[in-house]
Amino acid sequence: MEKIKVGCIGMGKRGQAMLKTVLAMCRDVTVAAVCDSYDDRAEIGRRLVFDATGVSPFSTTDASQVTAMDGLDAVLIFSAWESHVSLAIDAMEHGKYAGFEVGGAYTLDECFGLVKTYEKTGVPCMMLENCCYGKVELAVLEMVRGGLFGKIVHCSGGYHHDLRDEIAGGNINRHYRLRNYLARNCENYPTHELGPIATVMDINRGNRMVSLSSVASGSFGMEEFVKQNAEKYPELRGKHFDQGDVVNTTVTCADGSTIALTLDTTLPRFYSREFTVRGTRGAYIGLCDSVFIDGADEEDFNAKRHWGSGTKFRREYTHPLWKKYGRRARLAGHDGMDFMVLSAFFEAVRKKTSTPIDAYDAAAWMSITPLSEKSIALGGAPVEIPDFTNGMWREKREKLPLEFALD
Amino acid sequence: MEKIKVGCIGMGKRGQAMLKTVLAMCRDVTVAAVCDSYDDRAEIGRRLVFDATGVSPFSTTDASQVTAMDGLDAVLIFSAWESHVSLAIDAMEHGKYAGFEVGGAYTLDECFGLVKTYEKTGVPCMMLENCCYGKVELAVLEMVRGGLFGKIVHCSGGYHHDLRDEIAGGNINRHYRLRNYLARNCENYPTHELGPIATVMDINRGNRMVSLSSVASGSFGMEEFVKQNAEKYPELRGKHFDQGDVVNTTVTCADGSTIALTLDTTLPRFYSREFTVRGTRGAYIGLCDSVFIDGADEEDFNAKRHWGSGTKFRREYTHPLWKKYGRRARLAGHDGMDFMVLSAFFEAVRKKTSTPIDAYDAAAWMSITPLSEKSIALGGAPVEIPDFTNGMWREKREKLPLEFALD
Repeated sequence: MEKIKVGCIGMGKRGQAMLKTVLAMCRDVTVAAVCDSYDDRAEIGRRLVFDATGVSPFSTTDASQVTAMDGLDAVLIFSAWESHVSLAIDAMEHGKYAGFEVGGAYTLDECFGLVKTYEKTGVPCMMLENCCYGKVELAVLEMVRGGLFGKIVHCSGGYHHDLRDEIAGGNINRHYRLRNYLARNCENYPTHELGPIATVMDINRGNRMVSLSSVASGSFGMEEFVKQNAEKYPELRGKHFDQGDVVNTTVTCADGSTIALTLDTTLPRFYSREFTVRGTRGAYIGLCDSVFIDGADEEDFNAKRHWGSGTKFRREYTHPLWKKYGRRARLAGHDGMDFMVLSAFFEAVRKKTSTPIDAYDAAAWMSITPLSEKSIALGGAPVEIPDFTNGMWREKREKLPLEFALD
Repeated sequence: MEKIKVGCIGMGKRGQAMLKTVLAMCRDVTVAAVCDSYDDRAEIGRRLVFDATGVSPFSTTDASQVTAMDGLDAVLIFSAWESHVSLAIDAMEHGKYAGFEVGGAYTLDECFGLVKTYEKTGVPCMMLENCCYGKVELAVLEMVRGGLFGKIVHCSGGYHHDLRDEIAGGNINRHYRLRNYLARNCENYPTHELGPIATVMDINRGNRMVSLSSVASGSFGMEEFVKQNAEKYPELRGKHFDQGDVVNTTVTCADGSTIALTLDTTLPRFYSREFTVRGTRGAYIGLCDSVFIDGADEEDFNAKRHWGSGTKFRREYTHPLWKKYGRRARLAGHDGMDFMVLSAFFEAVRKKTSTPIDAYDAAAWMSITPLSEKSIALGGAPVEIPDFTNGMWREKREKLPLEFALD
């Protein structure tokens, strides 16, 4: 098979980790360009590629040189949240597949921009939402598709991740999280939980998100943290953070099902995504990794004897992608999710097919952020979620995740 | 000490259980009257008292004979949800303390009625919210009051209780749940989780609930259940249930903190209330019974090694009421909560003092139900929660739970 050629933009912490995973997939992919708006980080990217391959890629601080570069099949975008959409659009307009890291949008225009550019150019893009390819998430999807839970009525999940040190510690000019937490109040990072939920609920593929309501708690966590760590973060002294500590968002779907999302990143607790799927015949409850089938003995669960029953069910419901590529994925690190999502993207690039998590999915998922911002500002008022597919969701497009076949 | 005399109204399943607990407290209380609108159940109540004491109480199917009865100090109301408030008001107007079982209100007028009657008559009432006296809930409250979690920013909880069989199985004319699930769509049972949360957050006692937004999923669980159990419930065939399966409610408080409540009673899963308290310095997470203090090793929690750390903390933070009366409470059954809440009520009756969970608290907590109904009907629009205290909440009234001293 011919190798595909990619350029990678954004060499921050996440960009470096993703670049390493891409480099480990060297049988399929050549990294021909790296870019970061900061010299030092662009150099880190160049060095990573050189160390892995013995060849220095084209290296630049100007992203437009990558999106316009001749001979590239795709551009991978790992840069700050704010730049994902404009870079993806730029890449697509230059005929290159665009794969971009997760994050919310800033405006609905960005979301429509992705869709319009895709429809105009015919060049696909993909949000690289790795959690959609997690082993647990895909096994639960298999259970749903197998009818184990009956009709799906409600799903919930959260991004419970204490990021206070990362938010405060980022250089105020270089770190996108700090900028966002100082000046915005919204569900700023919905897709790690929404992606797998949207997959389970066939959003944009038979079902659709219709409206949402978001309520934010006050902002106390960061200010207390900065006070307690005053010597470490003197430049943040007295700063007010606009971002509420906990944002609860409820989404209503066309079929009457609902989705509850929680953003929870500035108070102390342990990490969790709490992926939960509720149906008329059963449930998966992520925090205690339990599968509950109608008629099961409740006492066994209340006594926590059946907590962890997810493990047993996953043996039977391992997703085909994990059966085939699980070992390779896990070797690549980060629970194998990055390998899986990148494989799916590269496969689409190589075969010149449409992508999973395409422009319509990305637009819908990312729209939660500006819409939640509006709802919060309106005191929790419900806000309509546009139909980015212009009615195509009714046609039950191919369901996620699309199959792929590695060599 | 002189015994207090009470009458008990409502001899359904819950009423019988509560009556037995009251009878076990016979050193303090005489049950002088029992009532149920159905003959057979009134007779069950009479029999329970006779078997325990050798004396038949006054027995009637007419509740007004109990509320008006001479010589009673208090009326205990265990009847259908719909009658709680009117019977409580009736008892108070006849100079009797009213203790009533939990449930939501049907209208805001009911809530204001409790407050106005209390202010007019000076006779206290009390919602008998047993979960406010749970051992876990009161220990977590001690942790909060001890400053372990810092400023409280967000609390959540739910009534996760699969009641499908109970809802469907109730005789259609005699069971209040079925009536409600057929014809209403609301957060119909908020107080088991809201009571302990309101206690932790000093609601009406320094803080106040200001507005809420409620979103209900579609109603699929009961209809599927009735279809699957068609022979058992032929009279429910084809009935449409108005009540959504999962109702998510977010409450905003005066101090900027938020509360997330979930009603979840018609889909299969195990029981849980998921009492969760989040502060700037720590958290209690009910589902995995974990106390997380800022700076703790996240890895230990992610590996579930520290799940159940609540047990260790509870040793240090056992609430004084549980230190003093825990053994007696547990002997009375139902995890000791019913004994505790009844003791608190009887203590107020005996000492002729105000009650904990008073008319203001009950009005605010019960108002969630009609307000959620309105919000759901408006597609999740935020709805104001009235200040039932008329500004008194700012005066930081005595915090819950009020102390009591048994002999």
